[in-house]
Amino acid sequence: MTDKFLFQQIQKKASFLCVGLDIDLEKIPHHLSNEEDPIFAFAKAIIDATNQFSVAYKLNLAFFEAYGIKGWQAFKKVINYLNSQYPNHFTIADAKRGDIGNTSQRYANSFFQVYGFDAVTVSPYMGKDAVTPFLSYKEKYAILLALTSNSGAQDFQYTKENDKYLYEKVLQSSLEWENSDRLMYVVGATKSESLISIRKLVPNSFLLIPGIGAQGGSLSEVAQNGMNHQCGLLVNSSRGIIYASENNDFAEAAASQSKILQTEMAVHLKSSGLI
Amino acid sequence: MTDKFLFQQIQKKASFLCVGLDIDLEKIPHHLSNEEDPIFAFAKAIIDATNQFSVAYKLNLAFFEAYGIKGWQAFKKVINYLNSQYPNHFTIADAKRGDIGNTSQRYANSFFQVYGFDAVTVSPYMGKDAVTPFLSYKEKYAILLALTSNSGAQDFQYTKENDKYLYEKVLQSSLEWENSDRLMYVVGATKSESLISIRKLVPNSFLLIPGIGAQGGSLSEVAQNGMNHQCGLLVNSSRGIIYASENNDFAEAAASQSKILQTEMAVHLKSSGLI
Repeated sequence: MTDKFLFQQIQKKASFLCVGLDIDLEKIPHHLSNEEDPIFAFAKAIIDATNQFSVAYKLNLAFFEAYGIKGWQAFKKVINYLNSQYPNHFTIADAKRGDIGNTSQRYANSFFQVYGFDAVTVSPYMGKDAVTPFLSYKEKYAILLALTSNSGAQDFQYTKENDKYLYEKVLQSSLEWENSDRLMYVVGATKSESLISIRKLVPNSFLLIPGIGAQGGSLSEVAQNGMNHQCGLLVNSSRGIIYASENNDFAEAAASQSKILQTEMAVHLKSSGLI
Repeated sequence: MTDKFLFQQIQKKASFLCVGLDIDLEKIPHHLSNEEDPIFAFAKAIIDATNQFSVAYKLNLAFFEAYGIKGWQAFKKVINYLNSQYPNHFTIADAKRGDIGNTSQRYANSFFQVYGFDAVTVSPYMGKDAVTPFLSYKEKYAILLALTSNSGAQDFQYTKENDKYLYEKVLQSSLEWENSDRLMYVVGATKSESLISIRKLVPNSFLLIPGIGAQGGSLSEVAQNGMNHQCGLLVNSSRGIIYASENNDFAEAAASQSKILQTEMAVHLKSSGLI
């Protein structure tokens, strides 16, 4: 998918919502445990209920991996379902991979070719040759961790060299890599005040923003500080949507929560003149 | 496994060799492609041929993930084979994971409980709460990336704050985390001159050293600069061992290469008075 097409979808849906599929079997409604594949059944119901309010889905690998082979089978079914039923949605493998070149090449092939994702989250710690293998695929994206939403972001991402933080160095350096137009960046919603300076460093890139909801980030501040000429934002919500209800009405509750976020997003898109 | 037990194995085998299972179907002998599970068949033959010269095996997740569900089935068979047949070998999932707390908890559960590994490699970029979930398991280890063997290590790991490099900050900070005795560190063999100062920062920890062989690191420099009172080194070799021959004699060739490294390791262990 091109970023232009993604922006068109954002305009069409009046939404820049990404729904995070962090599926925990202990949190899904009991009646689904009788299904042959409870993870897929839950994901399918959530996707069917929320797709009209969202433009992207993010699959958190950890939650699938935790269930071993069955988790991977469900993972494959979920991404296949998205690619066949909702091909206009942008799909993100939230895997935070990154390794020496020949190994990163394998991860890239796996997520882009074997599973058919549009994007993969990647850790910058190992530097350029750990990331660039992900940038060699047309219309595919590496979403590089810059400033994350968790408390541990303080530990190393703010390491300061010549008045520049490490996360700023990551942003600036990465722009010099080949095919850097295939980079997006993770910036936590809990760091929305930093979005102004981040936007100056990467004016044209899409930012994936986790941390709305359970982690306490503000959608309005994110929109105000981070939006660019083609929106440039994918705001993720996971727990707030998929666990909006523990009961049989979980899908309707997920739809309602998505709609609330989408409605707020529409206001921001309008006030920025993007729709 | 405790680090004391690992050191006993190192003394018993006169080896601190870790064999890296980075299995690429395009590089394994053709006759194995007729096997029901060529990845497992290759891994089993390599393990059976090399276990007497090694104390650890490292499974590179990227290489298994690249083959989808079949890759994960092979992955499970390989770790099950190691745990059942060679329980005294230290097993490492080279996954370079790391995410917000509740997600890292999932990864830790997956590798330690579902698969039964002794250790997982973890990226430090997201800080303390991304790593500490891996440290809550008794006799299990998180192997934190410090200074990696690839060219991209230059990009961010040498970010300098108050005369201290980022990788040094990672080492020092991590020692203050709860259960930090369950930390080991990745230090590339290609950075062997840095091992002297790294050893001063983490005198008691085990270091996992990739980069011998194909990447150009020197075993003798690593041993000289990095060994501590309980050896404290696991030197990994992947391609140099598992692809020592492309022919039917691949297992014998892998054994020969392992034995060459083990023989050199025995010399270093003896000259340090550890055996």
